[in-house]
Amino acid sequence: MKIIIIGSTGTIWQAVVEALSGNHDIVKVGNRGGDVQVDISSTESIKNLFDSIGNFDALVSAAGLAKFGVLAELKDEDFSLGLNHKLMGQVNLVRMGLAYINDNGSFTLTSGLLAREPMPGSAAISPVNAGLNGFTRAAALEMPRGIRINVVSPIWVKETMEKLGMDTAGGMSAEDTARAYVESVESSRNGEVLDVRDFV
Amino acid sequence: MKIIIIGSTGTIWQAVVEALSGNHDIVKVGNRGGDVQVDISSTESIKNLFDSIGNFDALVSAAGLAKFGVLAELKDEDFSLGLNHKLMGQVNLVRMGLAYINDNGSFTLTSGLLAREPMPGSAAISPVNAGLNGFTRAAALEMPRGIRINVVSPIWVKETMEKLGMDTAGGMSAEDTARAYVESVESSRNGEVLDVRDFV
Repeated sequence: MKIIIIGSTGTIWQAVVEALSGNHDIVKVGNRGGDVQVDISSTESIKNLFDSIGNFDALVSAAGLAKFGVLAELKDEDFSLGLNHKLMGQVNLVRMGLAYINDNGSFTLTSGLLAREPMPGSAAISPVNAGLNGFTRAAALEMPRGIRINVVSPIWVKETMEKLGMDTAGGMSAEDTARAYVESVESSRNGEVLDVRDFV
Repeated sequence: MKIIIIGSTGTIWQAVVEALSGNHDIVKVGNRGGDVQVDISSTESIKNLFDSIGNFDALVSAAGLAKFGVLAELKDEDFSLGLNHKLMGQVNLVRMGLAYINDNGSFTLTSGLLAREPMPGSAAISPVNAGLNGFTRAAALEMPRGIRINVVSPIWVKETMEKLGMDTAGGMSAEDTARAYVESVESSRNGEVLDVRDFV
């Protein structure tokens, strides 16, 4: 399969690329790195992306920015960032990608644990992640031509926790996290929220 | 208690006003009707609302517009409507209302069944409703001064179904729907998604 894999910070992205590149042709898309670049908060940028790549069989998005911060200090633009970038950026990859994806293809998006298991500081992220789960379940009911859509819900990634100086207990390696993405691409699942803890 | 009850289409709003007005002082807020008017998609309008009402003990929002429509035909602005009005409108009622709400007060928002039980046509509504559930669970962890926040998830309202010429089987009357709102205001629940089917 020809698979577009879109990343932002890169930790999960790189692991998903490694996990899928043995069996598939991969187009690596980053906001700066990768074979092609995209700013998913811009529909024009997404259009240019698909025009340059052409038809494909699967799209995996591990991209999307959202703001972590104390509720009392979150600004309007902190909420907008998550809604415009992580939520609508990924929604628009699906909406616009439908014109380019082959029959029986698949979309795999990324939400996150904070959708259902919030923590203090996640008031601008939890709605974005929950929104992605909600969109995926709904959009799956209207996918044409045998196309599937799922969303992977990662927990904290150990490599990211290390970079941030956090205790990595309770985190999951990027390699293990990638298993849920492979499952979404290679299985027949549709309309599911894949909790990464169910695939290790 | 002094309770602000904000509505838009009015069916649930009116029923919640009736259910709470026996025991409380109600300020009815509509987009056109009511004692005071507000456009919840405008932070300036929300600011004016709270300035004119002053301190309060509970806020109930049964307000919020979102677009139902076939995924392939939904436009960018159809997604924006739900995100800016129903989702961020209600989020901003909480963020800005925190400066006016009394100790041990409560916020009650409205999401909907489509958050977890989508149907064809709900791709722009399901993320909004799911986002409201996610925000509520997260924001509850950071409410100061004993303040609580819950979100009510209604199913189809029979009166609305009648207006739309739909079969009302499977719907719930506005009066029954209002019970979950009363529960949110008068109980000690916090951070919960109240499914209206659990309160009849």
